[in-house]
Amino acid sequence: MVSEIIKLYEDREDVTLTTYIIKSSQQTLNGQSRPAILICPGGAYLSCSDREAEPVALRFAAMGYHAFVLRYSVYFGNEVILPEPGVKYEQRDHSIHPNPMRDIAKAMLMIRKNADQWHVDPEKTALCGFSAGAHNCAMYSVYWHTPLIYAHFNIASDVFKPAAVILGYMLSDYYLLRDQEKSEDQKELFDLSNLALAGVQVLDDETLDELSPALHVSDKTPPMFLWATAKDELVPVEHTTRMANALANCNIPFEAHIFENGKHGLSLSDQSSAYDLTQIDTDAAKWLSLAESWLLKRFALDLNPSFTPGR
Amino acid sequence: MVSEIIKLYEDREDVTLTTYIIKSSQQTLNGQSRPAILICPGGAYLSCSDREAEPVALRFAAMGYHAFVLRYSVYFGNEVILPEPGVKYEQRDHSIHPNPMRDIAKAMLMIRKNADQWHVDPEKTALCGFSAGAHNCAMYSVYWHTPLIYAHFNIASDVFKPAAVILGYMLSDYYLLRDQEKSEDQKELFDLSNLALAGVQVLDDETLDELSPALHVSDKTPPMFLWATAKDELVPVEHTTRMANALANCNIPFEAHIFENGKHGLSLSDQSSAYDLTQIDTDAAKWLSLAESWLLKRFALDLNPSFTPGR
Repeated sequence: MVSEIIKLYEDREDVTLTTYIIKSSQQTLNGQSRPAILICPGGAYLSCSDREAEPVALRFAAMGYHAFVLRYSVYFGNEVILPEPGVKYEQRDHSIHPNPMRDIAKAMLMIRKNADQWHVDPEKTALCGFSAGAHNCAMYSVYWHTPLIYAHFNIASDVFKPAAVILGYMLSDYYLLRDQEKSEDQKELFDLSNLALAGVQVLDDETLDELSPALHVSDKTPPMFLWATAKDELVPVEHTTRMANALANCNIPFEAHIFENGKHGLSLSDQSSAYDLTQIDTDAAKWLSLAESWLLKRFALDLNPSFTPGR
Repeated sequence: MVSEIIKLYEDREDVTLTTYIIKSSQQTLNGQSRPAILICPGGAYLSCSDREAEPVALRFAAMGYHAFVLRYSVYFGNEVILPEPGVKYEQRDHSIHPNPMRDIAKAMLMIRKNADQWHVDPEKTALCGFSAGAHNCAMYSVYWHTPLIYAHFNIASDVFKPAAVILGYMLSDYYLLRDQEKSEDQKELFDLSNLALAGVQVLDDETLDELSPALHVSDKTPPMFLWATAKDELVPVEHTTRMANALANCNIPFEAHIFENGKHGLSLSDQSSAYDLTQIDTDAAKWLSLAESWLLKRFALDLNPSFTPGR
C-alpha cells in the first residue's frame, strides 16, 4: 500500500489528497486498473473529521478499490479547532462555495492524471461523503457538468463525472436546514457553517436554492447510494428522503437505507471509526456491506472467470 | 497509515515485516495503543503468497487493529517462482525448521520494541496464517514457550506469547500429510515443500512428530480460531478437525468453522484477494466476520462509554 499525502495546490497546506493505493501484484489483479473511491469527511465545513477519513478509506481499500481521502477547503483549514460559543468569527474566503466542490474536481483531475502510475480506472471513480462532506459530494454531483466546474478548469466536462456516489447522513436542502427547529448549540454551529460555506450567516433565497443539491438533480446526476438514521437530531433524515425523491423523479438509479436508531456522525458505526461507544450501532453499521454490494454491481474487478494454475 | 517494509535481519532481503499502522488521531483512539495482527501468508514454504498478504492486512486494519505482514523464510525467498516439474531441487538451509517459526518470534520482538512508537499494545498481538503460513503460526503457537524459541533469543519466554491465533486451511499433522493420497502434481509440491521445511523429501517419525502442531497442543497454547472448507482437495479438512480435537482436549478456548464448499487457498474469499473467480465463495467469505466477532471478545478497543462532546 502506498499511503502518502499530496497537496492539491502548491501554495496551500490545507487541501490534500491522502492516497491508499493497493500494491500491484502478479498474484492478484496483475497490473490491471482498479476502481477508486474518493472520500470527503464531514465537519460542517469547519473542519474535516479524521473519524470519516482513514477508517473509511481502509474499509474500501479492503474491498479491492484504491481509496483517497480529500481534505477540502473548510473554515478552520487543517487545524483541529472546536468553535467556541460567543466568539465572533470573521468571514474567510477560501471555504466559500463553489471552492469546496472545485476541490473535488481538482482531486478527480489528480486521480486521472496519475491513473497509469496508480493503476486506477479513471472511468470508475466513486465519491463517498458524510454529513457536510456528503453535501459537498452531492453539490459536485449536480454541478459537475456546469460551467461552475468545467469553465473554471477550462476542460471538457466528461472527465469530471463520478461513476457512483455514496452519501451518509447528508444535507440536501438548505431551506429545510433554515426552517429546522434548533437548540442554541445547533444554531451556533449552523450559523458558523453558513459563514464558512456562504460567507454570511443568513442566506438569501438564491443562495438557499444554489446550495440545495436536492433541487438540482438532473439526468446528468450519477447513481447514488444514500444512508442515514431516523433518529439523527442534528441533520433530520428528511434531507435524505428529499434527495431520494429527487433521484426517483429523474429516474437516476439509487438505493436508500434509513436505520431506525443511531445518532448523527456514525461514520462506519463500529469501533474502527468511533471515539466513544455512542458512535457504535451494529444495525447502522450494515450500511457498509449494503454499499459494498451496490458498488459491486458497477465496480466488480475484472477477474479471470476460470481456474488459473499456480495462482 | 504508515505502510513500510522493514528487514527483520540486516543481511537478508527475503524476511520482511510490512507495516499497516493506523494513524493516531485525537478524534479516534487519541494516542491509546491498539491490538495488532501479524499475518503469515501461505505458499507451501516455497514462497509467500501476495493473495494472503496485503488484502488480509487491509481487512484487519479496517477493524481498527494495526496489521503486519511477515514474509518468513521460504525456499524461493522473495522471488516469485513456480516450481517446475522434473527439476531436481537442492537442499537450502535458510527455510529449514525451526527457522520459519523463529521469524515469527523475531517479528513479535520487533513489534514489541516499537510498541510505543507504533501505539501497539504488545500484550494483544494475534497471529493470522493461511495454509503453510497457518502451519507456521500453529508451530509457533505450540513451541513459543520452549527453548527452540526463547533459548535461541536468550529472552524470557513471556514476551513471545501470542494473544490469539487465526488459522485458515491449516496443516496440523504431518502423518496425515504423509498418508494422504496424492496426485502427481500434489506429490511434487509436497516433496518440494518437505525439502524446504525439513531439508529432505521423506521425513522420519521424529520429524513428522515435531512438525505436527496438533500433537503438541498444551495449556500454553493460545486461543484459536480455525476455518477451512470441506471440499479442500489439497489440504484435507481433517487437519483442522484434528487441531480442534487437540484444543478441546486441552481446554483451550477455540472456535472452528468448516464451510461446505470452496477450494484450497481462498484467502478472504472475495474479489479483493482473488486472481480468478474460482477463488471467490460468498459463504466461505463469512469466516472474516466470524473472526472479527471472535477477536472483538478479546481485542475490543478501549473507547469511552458515554457521549463525548465535540467528537
